[in-house]
Amino acid sequence: TIYVITPTYARATQKADLIRLSQTLQHITDVHWIVVEDANATSKLVTNVLKRSKLLYTQLSIRTPAFLLRQKKEPKWKKPRGVAQRNRALLWLRENIQLKKSNGVVYFADDDNTYDKDLFNKFRNTKRVSVWPVGLVGGLRFEGPRCNNGKITGWRVVFDPNRPFPFDMAGFAINLELILENYQAHFSSSVAPGYLESSLLSSLVQDKTQLETITPNCREILVWHTTTARAHLNREPYVKAAKTLEDDKVEV
Amino acid sequence: TIYVITPTYARATQKADLIRLSQTLQHITDVHWIVVEDANATSKLVTNVLKRSKLLYTQLSIRTPAFLLRQKKEPKWKKPRGVAQRNRALLWLRENIQLKKSNGVVYFADDDNTYDKDLFNKFRNTKRVSVWPVGLVGGLRFEGPRCNNGKITGWRVVFDPNRPFPFDMAGFAINLELILENYQAHFSSSVAPGYLESSLLSSLVQDKTQLETITPNCREILVWHTTTARAHLNREPYVKAAKTLEDDKVEV
Ligand SMILES: O=c1ccn([C@@H]2O[C@H](COP(=O)(O)OP(=O)(O)O)[C@@H](O)[C@H]2O)c(=O)[nH]1
Ligand SMILES: O=c1ccn([C@@H]2O[C@H](COP(=O)(O)OP(=O)(O)O)[C@@H](O)[C@H]2O)c(=O)[nH]1
Ligand SMILES: [Mn+2]
Ligand SMILES: [Mn+2]
Repeated sequence: TIYVITPTYARATQKADLIRLSQTLQHITDVHWIVVEDANATSKLVTNVLKRSKLLYTQLSIRTPAFLLRQKKEPKWKKPRGVAQRNRALLWLRENIQLKKSNGVVYFADDDNTYDKDLFNKFRNTKRVSVWPVGLVGGLRFEGPRCNNGKITGWRVVFDPNRPFPFDMAGFAINLELILENYQAHFSSSVAPGYLESSLLSSLVQDKTQLETITPNCREILVWHTTTARAHLNREPYVKAAKTLEDDKVEV
Repeated sequence: TIYVITPTYARATQKADLIRLSQTLQHITDVHWIVVEDANATSKLVTNVLKRSKLLYTQLSIRTPAFLLRQKKEPKWKKPRGVAQRNRALLWLRENIQLKKSNGVVYFADDDNTYDKDLFNKFRNTKRVSVWPVGLVGGLRFEGPRCNNGKITGWRVVFDPNRPFPFDMAGFAINLELILENYQAHFSSSVAPGYLESSLLSSLVQDKTQLETITPNCREILVWHTTTARAHLNREPYVKAAKTLEDDKVEV
């Protein structure tokens, strides 16, 4: 089973992003989608997407603590995003999946990235932690391991290459047993920008020499760190409608 | 057959957008994807996406004429986008599909929008021209027809509501015969912003009272005018690599 963990938060483009991701996951066999809302309670909008997806899913929610919320005018990269949500999903796995009884792999799939459906089968048999390149991230066309016949030989990365695990959230998968055995492993929200991935992985593997690849030469891009632009709804106040209240009930 | 017409142009996020769209179309039965590149010749990148999609497809190309290209600092809405490409696809239909022999419907699907797979079956039986609401467009949560038991009663639109056909490219489908019979109907690139859809539809239906709906109350949002944010590749010059030329061959 591939456990796909997706943090998500309310905004105008949320449903569009989740629909797109759900339609990608519908191509994958044996997947369990764990969606964690950044909210005090789960929402009907997300429940509707999950139900209509026909996927096996778990819907959770946890609010990002106030001190971690981005302040007005604070640049986006200053505060880590989706941390409490991904940790909530790890907790769910530890509370609900029994060690040894299941074999599986865990992947963190943000709601607005683009995933080629072929990616999932390539990392399905991850022994410990596997890594691969990610498109359009870190200011680069692609960022990730350089390798040769399945052996990692270096890293294509410009931003802080000395990080213990210098790659993006979308660029690795973890064997489920490793997550269950190391019950304390989690993402730390107090680390410097770029160190989120390292904060989890440091508890799971000793260093980057222990990582696996998923294609012989690490040159196939199967995931892109795309961003959905914010939707501008500035004309909404000018809608002429006897029944604007009815409009509010339309789920977008 | 649903003929899905997609104009597309080279930029960092092109492949990601096309992969995402192709994975949506893979859920639809009896679809023919006509992809028209804004270029002098077709590209290997787009060919690869089309081949891997396993969809029935046609790959075309035509360059947007220079006088229609957006000038530096000119706002995006000033110049229409994808016009020559959509017209090229209409020409292809007229040259390759025989009137009366086939029944079908034509839909214009830009490469970066979000499509719910259920949309396609709802407009598949369009008699002349069908319309439906589109999410996140025109400065609104959603824009489109208001209706009651399948009859259009008005329009939820703020931007220039007096346009003959005041709705978005993603919000209508056309019966194929209507396109083939009216061989001169096409998009005009010389119309004012917002009148592109009207320029085609005015040659096909007399006015908006002749339009059909696809759900009883026009309240289900099944397509969103999302925008993929531009990717910033500003660190690319700093990649340390003996073999940067090899890197250039990696398709992203
Ligand atoms: O306040 C927030 C902001 C983001 N996210 C989620 O965290 C992930 C990463 O966020 P985003 O895509 O905005 O950031 P970036 O891609 O720039 O890292 C996404 O799945 C978001 O839905 C969240 O749960 N709460
Ligand atoms: O120079 C261009 C710009 C855009 N497009 C295509 O035209 C459609 C609409 O463009 P875009 O999504 O950029 O504009 P918007 O959504 O703002 O109308 C998309 O399918 C693009 O790939 C094109 O063929 N050439
Ligand atoms: Mn993101
Ligand atoms: Mn667009």
